[in-house]
Amino acid sequence: MKHNFGAGPCILPQTVFEKAAAAVLDFNGLSILEVSHRHKDFVAVMDEAIELVKKALNVPTGYSVVFMQGGASLGFTIAALNMMRDNKRAGYFNTGTWASGAIKEAKKVGVDVSVLASSEDKNFNYIPKDYTIPSDLDYLHFTSNNTIYGTQYKQFPVTDLPLVCDMSSDIFSQVIDVSKFDLIYAGAQKNLGPAGATIYIVKDSALGKSTSPFMPSYLDLKQQVDKESMLNTPPVFSVYVALLNLRNLLENGGVSEMEKRNIAKATLLYNEIDRNTLFTGSVKTEDRSNMNVTFTLNDESNSSAFDSAWKAAGIVGLPGHRSTGGYRASLYNALPIESVQVLVDVMKHFESQG
Amino acid sequence: MKHNFGAGPCILPQTVFEKAAAAVLDFNGLSILEVSHRHKDFVAVMDEAIELVKKALNVPTGYSVVFMQGGASLGFTIAALNMMRDNKRAGYFNTGTWASGAIKEAKKVGVDVSVLASSEDKNFNYIPKDYTIPSDLDYLHFTSNNTIYGTQYKQFPVTDLPLVCDMSSDIFSQVIDVSKFDLIYAGAQKNLGPAGATIYIVKDSALGKSTSPFMPSYLDLKQQVDKESMLNTPPVFSVYVALLNLRNLLENGGVSEMEKRNIAKATLLYNEIDRNTLFTGSVKTEDRSNMNVTFTLNDESNSSAFDSAWKAAGIVGLPGHRSTGGYRASLYNALPIESVQVLVDVMKHFESQG
Repeated sequence: MKHNFGAGPCILPQTVFEKAAAAVLDFNGLSILEVSHRHKDFVAVMDEAIELVKKALNVPTGYSVVFMQGGASLGFTIAALNMMRDNKRAGYFNTGTWASGAIKEAKKVGVDVSVLASSEDKNFNYIPKDYTIPSDLDYLHFTSNNTIYGTQYKQFPVTDLPLVCDMSSDIFSQVIDVSKFDLIYAGAQKNLGPAGATIYIVKDSALGKSTSPFMPSYLDLKQQVDKESMLNTPPVFSVYVALLNLRNLLENGGVSEMEKRNIAKATLLYNEIDRNTLFTGSVKTEDRSNMNVTFTLNDESNSSAFDSAWKAAGIVGLPGHRSTGGYRASLYNALPIESVQVLVDVMKHFESQG
Repeated sequence: MKHNFGAGPCILPQTVFEKAAAAVLDFNGLSILEVSHRHKDFVAVMDEAIELVKKALNVPTGYSVVFMQGGASLGFTIAALNMMRDNKRAGYFNTGTWASGAIKEAKKVGVDVSVLASSEDKNFNYIPKDYTIPSDLDYLHFTSNNTIYGTQYKQFPVTDLPLVCDMSSDIFSQVIDVSKFDLIYAGAQKNLGPAGATIYIVKDSALGKSTSPFMPSYLDLKQQVDKESMLNTPPVFSVYVALLNLRNLLENGGVSEMEKRNIAKATLLYNEIDRNTLFTGSVKTEDRSNMNVTFTLNDESNSSAFDSAWKAAGIVGLPGHRSTGGYRASLYNALPIESVQVLVDVMKHFESQG
């Protein structure tokens, strides 16, 4: 039994793996890998997946959902291209690697980026909350959860401007109010499904209003919405597994139940980090992520002994990102609280061995 | 037993489906769907997949291979962006829907497109061979196989200009001389693997020479090559299945053996189409595709009876593209000649019933 704390692609429910494997061998008489994306059986998969995204997140009418490819990295470009208006100026919050990437790609397509706030001064260990928002911006962009550093917005920015969010690493982990956003995008490979799909939730009234002189068809959300995620061959298997996972999510209480479980898991682990004399949490307490718990050993010389201990307990995926070091326990929806307890027990035992 | 003549996503070897399903349940102790793309086990998958693409196609030194996402539809944009030089002008051949798409997307990113030849006058039922090539072009683009219409270049255009090809539907089906090309791109979902991955084979000397003012990082082949297909999270499962399929290809004689088998399959079916009094091939004989065999019933009123006959034989995926009608039998690498014989027998029997 492995306890997969990896940051993504990450753990999904075992029943999803089993159903996905079964469909690779037999999906209505063929392998799901050889089914045409135009076959009615797959069109039904895509339609249901889109419906279940809407149901799980309580997406209001007037919004569309599309499945695309390219991850949030292509999403950075797509967001800027589609949300660019007459000002060609937008506000961004720099809360780490992915937020910085979004800024870089927006600039590359001609957006004049105002970085309204940044936590770079403290290696992104907090969410900046002190800023003013100019009125001549086309939109405001932020990254709801910072996978690498372990920070998370507990309150989203409040603004009358169109709000755009890269929600890759905490979408489906908590209840959100989609109506506050013009655009949400997220790589699938955390709480939605395997790598290879990216979802966009876009306000219909925001479509087709870009002022960008450059708009390849694939990157145009209006065309993607008009073609119902079939502008070209979609990532069939990734969408199918996302559907299996969405069904599982809704059968198990939906996003509100996941939020409760995720808070319980995070509380269990943060309490141990704070109690245990050998460890320190990496980020400001009020900004701690419920998805990615980052911490360090107070004495680095203990690291090989600690690493042996958690590995012996069947834990995988615990090392921090290569840019930060330390440890990172990712607590995505499918990770059971029992796995968190195993980690907590390892930490306690490690301390008692002194 | 189904005989899958679908045009793509399409049949792959049964052993590939079985190994893929097994890895969804267990890939070195985890599901392949929950493995980090940075884990050494997946980095090894990516490295081997790239090596086997090079081996299968005898890719010369001085070329790089990358796995990306977005299909050929995003490839149209990527090709134009990366191959644009000082002239900002390129030559395209219009041989059907996908070639037209490539032209449209090149124009959208600022390439002045010269359509050097087109077969639109006869609903794309032939490959145009009468054209002159201006010297002030940055590159020449063509589509090697036209899935919808069933035409295929039997000889590639000869030019000193950088040659760019969308090879989505016949790559790995025949021996090619990669050294003639600056850029080859192909969606995976025919002879390489399942939907969700796209490969680019690019001459290293062509990288980083674009004159486009607009170059998002994801679309920049130089950055993709520099990051070894890991600029962002790759489509892990699609790459893994492509690797399984490439291993299978090389264990079974490689591309030269597939070419022999594909010619044998196509010959068997075209001979029957030409012999049988009830059917007519849709395209000019010399331009007939070995991958997608298009044909029509001479008497449309026979169609429901013929449809019942092939369906009763376990055949799926035979209807022509919704834009053309008629029939299309796709004979990709994994389709056994026995399946083609089943179709031929159905056609013979259908004729004998009068």
